[in-house]
Amino acid sequence: MQRAAFAFELLAQARDSRARAGVFHTPHGAVRTPAFMPVGTRATVKGVDSHSLARLGSQMILANTYHLHLRPGEALIAELGGLHGFMRWNGPILTDSGGYQVFSLSDTRRVDDDGASFRSVVDGAQVRFTPERVIEIEAALGADVAMAFDHCPSQPDARGEVELATARTHAWLERCVRRHRELGGEERGQALFGIVQGGAFDDLRARSVDSVCAHDLVGYAIGGVSVGETREQMLIAVQAAAPRLPDDRPRYLMGVGTPRDFLDAIERGVDLFDCVTPTRHGRTHQAFTRQGTLNLRNAAHARDARPLEEDCDCPACAPGYSRAYLRHLAKSGEMLGAQLLTQHNLRAFHRLMEEIRAAVLSGSLAAVRQRWLGAAPLGD
Amino acid sequence: MQRAAFAFELLAQARDSRARAGVFHTPHGAVRTPAFMPVGTRATVKGVDSHSLARLGSQMILANTYHLHLRPGEALIAELGGLHGFMRWNGPILTDSGGYQVFSLSDTRRVDDDGASFRSVVDGAQVRFTPERVIEIEAALGADVAMAFDHCPSQPDARGEVELATARTHAWLERCVRRHRELGGEERGQALFGIVQGGAFDDLRARSVDSVCAHDLVGYAIGGVSVGETREQMLIAVQAAAPRLPDDRPRYLMGVGTPRDFLDAIERGVDLFDCVTPTRHGRTHQAFTRQGTLNLRNAAHARDARPLEEDCDCPACAPGYSRAYLRHLAKSGEMLGAQLLTQHNLRAFHRLMEEIRAAVLSGSLAAVRQRWLGAAPLGD
Repeated sequence: MQRAAFAFELLAQARDSRARAGVFHTPHGAVRTPAFMPVGTRATVKGVDSHSLARLGSQMILANTYHLHLRPGEALIAELGGLHGFMRWNGPILTDSGGYQVFSLSDTRRVDDDGASFRSVVDGAQVRFTPERVIEIEAALGADVAMAFDHCPSQPDARGEVELATARTHAWLERCVRRHRELGGEERGQALFGIVQGGAFDDLRARSVDSVCAHDLVGYAIGGVSVGETREQMLIAVQAAAPRLPDDRPRYLMGVGTPRDFLDAIERGVDLFDCVTPTRHGRTHQAFTRQGTLNLRNAAHARDARPLEEDCDCPACAPGYSRAYLRHLAKSGEMLGAQLLTQHNLRAFHRLMEEIRAAVLSGSLAAVRQRWLGAAPLGD
Repeated sequence: MQRAAFAFELLAQARDSRARAGVFHTPHGAVRTPAFMPVGTRATVKGVDSHSLARLGSQMILANTYHLHLRPGEALIAELGGLHGFMRWNGPILTDSGGYQVFSLSDTRRVDDDGASFRSVVDGAQVRFTPERVIEIEAALGADVAMAFDHCPSQPDARGEVELATARTHAWLERCVRRHRELGGEERGQALFGIVQGGAFDDLRARSVDSVCAHDLVGYAIGGVSVGETREQMLIAVQAAAPRLPDDRPRYLMGVGTPRDFLDAIERGVDLFDCVTPTRHGRTHQAFTRQGTLNLRNAAHARDARPLEEDCDCPACAPGYSRAYLRHLAKSGEMLGAQLLTQHNLRAFHRLMEEIRAAVLSGSLAAVRQRWLGAAPLGD
């Protein structure tokens, strides 16, 4: 696949799973996959400036169409150089379409076959999202990848709702593809990714893959997860969708998750992830480590002179900030605690992806799985 | 003056004022004066890690005996390598003695000639501070400079209260000096600074200088300011005290202030400052610039593509974050806004001090005063 500035190079496949290593080329640079994308909802990864993000090993970040449309509005962002200029991030950016937020955040939403209406949480105004409108907003935001506007069902096992949402997602994708093409397509420097729905139903996921992949797109995503489903339901969705997606396009599992989720999904062929876990956990003083998740508010850390992880090169561990110090910051409500833990968690996720990638290139993920999940389960 | 690892080198004096440039040598390095010390109340300068602090040009920082005694306690900090090890700051540190906090923060305090009792804001426990006890706590915290325990009067113009507080401060200084010496004196790597009181009364300040300077100390401070007095009262205190302090010791004006205050005090012979203004203003989205103070919440900045200051090398300005972006962060309640503005403000204060120092070395502060205060008054 090679189109304008976009290309996905498949470099290697694991011997013992569907795990793969590749490079996703975008107008703002290459993303070595598998990759984790930090979430920058309102054009900021909470607590981390762009320079620090790059130093942590972030390659591509996500921003949120729904939130940015409400404030400060895509027109202002376009005027200030698009998301890249606005947030001073010169690497690749992906905007999610707002589908997930419309269906998860808006109590007052009204959805019909044409689109969705909801009240702005910023000023109470009525807002109308249609597939065309969302593509226009994403075009103004100017990310490298725009996600199609989808209907994300609230329950992955409510077959009726999932069928309706999946059919609607397919109809809306048609309209997204058309509007995206009218606005210049990939030649404008922005790719469109389609989103597979189908809940936790193997047959619906398989049919959704067929419908979505009928459109020749730069990449494909598995949506409708991270809505409160069980791990089993999430894996049914991934198992049903990922292996059926074309080999030569990046596969993105939306809103997932923890180190265990990454390993499970990567072994089923997923390449890209985003999730608020590292940043949100950081702000609640929880640290991801190979020895499990540490809650820095716990008294157990009160006199612990060790850093979070001995061999970590993040801004919390490398200068040697002790667990005792991080606990002091947590107990004192000092913002530096959240900042340091957020950065540690992002670095931990990026390091995990780097290890996974090296492991795929050398044939097997088994050693990484043992190293990260062998001792205490992570993120369960 | 040369004692153990401490020395103050006077390098130059301005032609047209008492402003001076020097170097204050401490066991953890040299401080080029005039200098501004960021405030790290609870062993963290709010929102800025130690590595970033150094890059902003911070030379010496302040931490707070009162707050750190209450949480996490000086024993824990000593166990973790003292303040330098605890907060991973290898440069000079000064601890204030808690005098100001005891008298400004504790509603329930009871003060007598022996010391002060108050309730812990952390757990409600009764706490007793005497001069000896404070020196012991500061010894455990292990800063390069420990401030003497003083009685800070609440009103600089209430003569009766000021006289009592000043006399008590002198009596307590005797006891601080004795305990400091018993614990090893400067040979232990920690200097003691005495504090001049006397409110806004020229005669009381002059007498206080005589009493305090009867002790041969590494440095001297002007206290009892930043308690809500007028600028005129503050300048009376500085004018009465600073020129009478020995030339060959650093002079530290406690808790002050703004760029205008710095220039006024430096022209009267002050070398060292600390204040929460840059960090606190940063958290309320106010930026110090040569063009005056900007409130980033104002609608005026909504579409402004300019950085805070064109020629600033801070982590907000150098990557080119626009005022519009900083306003977006402020309006969205995103912590990155406070982080970037805090760093800008610290850098602005350090740059001002660097400019002042260069100006003193070349003879006159007039140009700096014109550059920083010529247009719009700053920090008034």
